[in-house]
Amino acid sequence: MIRVLISGHRVDWDEYGELLSAALTDAGIDAEVIHETRPRSPETIDYIVYAPWSDMKDFSPFTGAKAVINLWAGVEGVVTNETLKVPLARMVDPGLTGGMVEWCVAHALRHHLGIDRDICRRDAVWDPHLPPLARERPLTILGFGVLGQAVAEALSGLGFPVTGWSRSAKDVAGVTCLSGEDGLVAALRRAELLILLLPLTPATEEIMNSERLALLPKGAILINPGRGPLIDDNALLAALDSGHIAHATLDVFREEPLPGDHPFWAHPGITVTPHIASGTRPDTAVEIIVENIRRGEAGEPLLHLVDRSLGY
Amino acid sequence: MIRVLISGHRVDWDEYGELLSAALTDAGIDAEVIHETRPRSPETIDYIVYAPWSDMKDFSPFTGAKAVINLWAGVEGVVTNETLKVPLARMVDPGLTGGMVEWCVAHALRHHLGIDRDICRRDAVWDPHLPPLARERPLTILGFGVLGQAVAEALSGLGFPVTGWSRSAKDVAGVTCLSGEDGLVAALRRAELLILLLPLTPATEEIMNSERLALLPKGAILINPGRGPLIDDNALLAALDSGHIAHATLDVFREEPLPGDHPFWAHPGITVTPHIASGTRPDTAVEIIVENIRRGEAGEPLLHLVDRSLGY
Repeated sequence: MIRVLISGHRVDWDEYGELLSAALTDAGIDAEVIHETRPRSPETIDYIVYAPWSDMKDFSPFTGAKAVINLWAGVEGVVTNETLKVPLARMVDPGLTGGMVEWCVAHALRHHLGIDRDICRRDAVWDPHLPPLARERPLTILGFGVLGQAVAEALSGLGFPVTGWSRSAKDVAGVTCLSGEDGLVAALRRAELLILLLPLTPATEEIMNSERLALLPKGAILINPGRGPLIDDNALLAALDSGHIAHATLDVFREEPLPGDHPFWAHPGITVTPHIASGTRPDTAVEIIVENIRRGEAGEPLLHLVDRSLGY
Repeated sequence: MIRVLISGHRVDWDEYGELLSAALTDAGIDAEVIHETRPRSPETIDYIVYAPWSDMKDFSPFTGAKAVINLWAGVEGVVTNETLKVPLARMVDPGLTGGMVEWCVAHALRHHLGIDRDICRRDAVWDPHLPPLARERPLTILGFGVLGQAVAEALSGLGFPVTGWSRSAKDVAGVTCLSGEDGLVAALRRAELLILLLPLTPATEEIMNSERLALLPKGAILINPGRGPLIDDNALLAALDSGHIAHATLDVFREEPLPGDHPFWAHPGITVTPHIASGTRPDTAVEIIVENIRRGEAGEPLLHLVDRSLGY
């Protein structure tokens, strides 16, 4: 029998415990699922399912652990932990991906069509305005992994000319793929809508600084469901105040929950959403966890293994 | 040489005139395009491009006309005109279809994800709420012609379980197709999101009356980019006030522009958009007009010919 620890303190991890036990049984894996803040006999734990905001920062007592499976796509909270010596997998869950696509398409179309005015109307003025078609609105996605490509596919399907930028060169049908520093400049210059889906690493922190914000076309829209520190907050506020950026819709922040006195809340050019662009969904995520445990037991490489030198 | 009359008085029909002349020349059709409210020698006009809200209600002087080509998808303003004796074509323009898909997807996702609260925020409260995935949100489209099917394809591609209902039975891949009165009841009972894309005919007027609104699941969302009189306005207001319908987003109205004192403007459960869900786009529409003129000259059947006994 193997032992699986769910490390995290939020109430809804109990739901994961039940679903994970059932899914492991269904897969024919004899396992005990433990959900404790300080488990006894940590050396007997085989796999650690690592929940975001876990208090557990010292992996060294888990001398028998074979892998750590992160419950979210972003691993910046654990990837630099020097006590972690075993393979680390990110969560790439179809539910999380689907939710991210829905949120990004909703906000991209919302800005493209300019519907805020209708939604938050305070007058009774009939003022028709026919927006351009999506095919006339170039859109760029920075970060072109599983999430970025899924969002690109949906937006491209709706007609947007999509450019995807990533560190390493990619080739995706129907999308202009760019990479490297020159590619970044070209990707930003055309971005009437810009979506950030980069992992947070030392190389991407504040990638959207004042110089790069200035590369965007005047009136551009910035949408960030990635990670808060991808943006230099003060540079963004300055670009909004100057009118160079028309609006920013932000789901992630340097500090979460976003403090009540943060200027983002009150700024008319900023929409704050409370880190809901997408969450891991228990029912689909446990399937990925079980598959990775099966692979670990069979000696096969894990799905969505993190390259710790790259940070994602 | 043939003579083509653009009948309508809005300024932007001038744009059609220029584009249409150029497109006819490109197609090798020797034609004169006329844009006059009261053309001299009406008997010499070969084709009438009929703009919405045209003042011209008497087709009888146009004794040489071969066809009337409507500039919009809806023909209720002309189909019952008894002076019209020649074939009538509706506009089914890729630009109009694309715009309609964008508007419907934007508002369907907006309601599905509940983003109004974030967009119109007046406080600084961090209150995460993870919505269900689209696959858990059944959506019904009433009216399953070119527009309805294009909207269904886009929403189905995003994961929504889509049901399409139409007068006559249809078969569309990936979508549950229903027809007839029993089919309508089933289509409404499951519709957490309901989109109206029916033509306006005597059979569809006030199709959404109080009995049919009551069939919707509690908390349903109604989205109407079709035609205003598809809905019994007072029944809708009552269903909103009782809480049975959670929200209605309406783009079309019995009287347009919607009068400033109409209760829809001020109702917190209604979003009014000023008939912008989609408009005919000159650049794509002229291609359809030219193709229909070519067909008319060649004696071939017109595209999108209206069955005047059905009214669409």
